Amino acid sequence: MNSLPILDPATDEACCAPAGTPALGAEEAKQKALVFKALADPNRLRLLSIVKADASGESCVCDLTEPLDLGQPTVSHHLKILVEAGLLHREKRGTWAYYSVVPGALDAAAGLLATL
Amino acid sequence: MNSLPILDPATDEACCAPAGTPALGAEEAKQKALVFKALADPNRLRLLSIVKADASGESCVCDLTEPLDLGQPTVSHHLKILVEAGLLHREKRGTWAYYSVVPGALDAAAGLLATL
Repeated sequence: MNSLPILDPATDEACCAPAGTPALGAEEAKQKALVFKALADPNRLRLLSIVKADASGESCVCDLTEPLDLGQPTVSHHLKILVEAGLLHREKRGTWAYYSVVPGALDAAAGLLATL
Repeated sequence: MNSLPILDPATDEACCAPAGTPALGAEEAKQKALVFKALADPNRLRLLSIVKADASGESCVCDLTEPLDLGQPTVSHHLKILVEAGLLHREKRGTWAYYSVVPGALDAAAGLLATL
């Protein structure tokens, strides 16, 4: 975060005050972008939506393939990205894996935008 | 949105109630994903951060290349994506283009997560 180059504020054609060091550091930006990358896919948004809407609070992976009309490998790939981004929690029970939204995770993702 | 196949709920190995139709439709998911795609890049997040933090409320494109140590074509490419996603407003004045955060746009993006 402190590895940004020190820039010479003098320019030949100054048009306005230099913006200076970015408010958001490079490393922090990378971490935040990972969350938005996980959200940047329509199928992943729909998967999150189904899991969030489930009255039981969790969804079996066996029920997530059919509503999106996708194969299980594709759904598993998307679910893995959502788990890695900290948005979904995965629990294996018997034959199936069950997914639930990590409590507070969507609020936290929304909060990333407030603190840009 | 109504083009999802009617699924046979009977399975050999039923594990739980079928999740049914996704709460989020395909078209809506596509639109929302576009906003998150714009946010899914560290340099774009840093650009947003600089523009947002500028005391004058807007940043000249000439001041956005140096803090990120990127060339102007790269910065312009990222800015274009942010404008197209409705997050930044662009105004050309004389030689330079000036960018400002579209009022309410970041809150609206955060709101997309609340309504998944």
